[in-house]
Amino acid sequence: MEWDGVARPTARLGPVTRSRVRTVSGSAVRDRRDDLATEEPLEIRLLAGGESRTVAITMRTPGADFELAAGFLHGEGIAGPGDIAAIGYCTDEDLDPEARYNTVTVRLAAPRLPDLATARNFLTSSACGVCGTASLDALRDRCAVPAVRPPVAVPATTLYGLPDRLREAQGVFGRTGGLHGAGLFTPDGAPLAVREDVGRHNAVDKLVGWALLGGRTPLDRHVLLVSGRVGYEIMQKAASAGIQIVCAVSAPSSLAVDLAREFGITLVGFLREERFNIYACPERIDVEQVAGTP
Amino acid sequence: MEWDGVARPTARLGPVTRSRVRTVSGSAVRDRRDDLATEEPLEIRLLAGGESRTVAITMRTPGADFELAAGFLHGEGIAGPGDIAAIGYCTDEDLDPEARYNTVTVRLAAPRLPDLATARNFLTSSACGVCGTASLDALRDRCAVPAVRPPVAVPATTLYGLPDRLREAQGVFGRTGGLHGAGLFTPDGAPLAVREDVGRHNAVDKLVGWALLGGRTPLDRHVLLVSGRVGYEIMQKAASAGIQIVCAVSAPSSLAVDLAREFGITLVGFLREERFNIYACPERIDVEQVAGTP
Repeated sequence: MEWDGVARPTARLGPVTRSRVRTVSGSAVRDRRDDLATEEPLEIRLLAGGESRTVAITMRTPGADFELAAGFLHGEGIAGPGDIAAIGYCTDEDLDPEARYNTVTVRLAAPRLPDLATARNFLTSSACGVCGTASLDALRDRCAVPAVRPPVAVPATTLYGLPDRLREAQGVFGRTGGLHGAGLFTPDGAPLAVREDVGRHNAVDKLVGWALLGGRTPLDRHVLLVSGRVGYEIMQKAASAGIQIVCAVSAPSSLAVDLAREFGITLVGFLREERFNIYACPERIDVEQVAGTP
Repeated sequence: MEWDGVARPTARLGPVTRSRVRTVSGSAVRDRRDDLATEEPLEIRLLAGGESRTVAITMRTPGADFELAAGFLHGEGIAGPGDIAAIGYCTDEDLDPEARYNTVTVRLAAPRLPDLATARNFLTSSACGVCGTASLDALRDRCAVPAVRPPVAVPATTLYGLPDRLREAQGVFGRTGGLHGAGLFTPDGAPLAVREDVGRHNAVDKLVGWALLGGRTPLDRHVLLVSGRVGYEIMQKAASAGIQIVCAVSAPSSLAVDLAREFGITLVGFLREERFNIYACPERIDVEQVAGTP
């Protein structure tokens, strides 16, 4: 096998890329081929009234690109249900074929582009954990804390089963070990949709976009589970989508807990086997069964 | 304990934040206090010739903030060795005390600010996995592929020991389970510096900044190890710092492998116990010992 030089496959649009790899294990050294999680840039363009504008470029795993674009725009407060007229890959024939599948154009129903001048820095950054106070304030404006929380209650024993269901549905993770997963579940633990991506924020955008494009929003009766840690950006997207129960297999950050408490979202961390921690709004998790109190 | 409402501690500048938590384990339900990895925004401002400009706002774990700022600027090609005259927290008395420690001002030695107009979108986004073709081209311009690689060779058995050394030095991870770690090692496996952060890109920026501020660049004789996956943004920072061997405990993405091959960087993934994969430039890893050939 040749190791040096640039070996960029011409077709790179699946979620998995084959690569040469040398495996060293104990006293064995072996050259073989292996699967990698594909990472490629996706440019999201808005189109309205004959004008177009790039609002974000994110590194993502190809697949569910339209959902990713819709979910991203929803999370930024740009497009809710009914605001999107059409979504398509770029049809610019000047682009090479691969680049066409790395650009998604979202045509808005509105007659002109929204004014994004002041929001622009926020837009290009918040998808990936970068933000400023301005974005937190904007989020606060968009996501009203519900005055009376709907009585969604999930038994603790239902949560125990979610990580296995997420992992079972993560087809590409099994092949590459390199993808974050996010899943939406009903309050009784039935999986509705699972998405994967090299970026944890993208996996959540894809889920929210799936719900948005399928007319399934708001998601206030659903449980979100993410495969890794949970920080500011995941809670921001959950709050925008109206999700009231967020679970993570790993640790939350301090700011994730702050946001959960401020927006009245139940936040569960370290959900592994028959154990978890609740960091905010514990009243939505029914622990009667596990506590043995009838 | 009170669960509702906003409970934002007034002092939030350590790497660990105490939080109330309800632990559900088997049939036991217990309310207690636990440590969280702190996540807070950091604004990085440039200062030169009496002018100042914000170049990035990143969500980070407080600590090593000056190193983070220096490493970020180095990775973006804005400030190399000798370009930084001073670094300090914001002294604006109009800010509340906490916000002062969330703003770092870097005074450049140059008489005026660099022209960042065209690079600005790149700047605010590339620290966190968002990028465009423009940034890849800019990186290519900055980081010349070495014509003749220096003969750094690391025995495979040396790599085996690195993850344990990284974990041992990750003090905050042990308390919170919620931080990425990054470490710099000599070719014989001695740890030089380890940094932690909620953002994996920040942990690497802190390391590079540590080297930059201590006059230890270039890092072409060092090994970088990151605790998680490795994608585009980590390889970009490694290439900017001249690092020639990058190891990760988890999977690389396809674009990380592409960049490693293009820039002649040895990329090792899934480094766990006595096993790893080499994805690019395997000639810097000496497998003679493990292969049993004298």
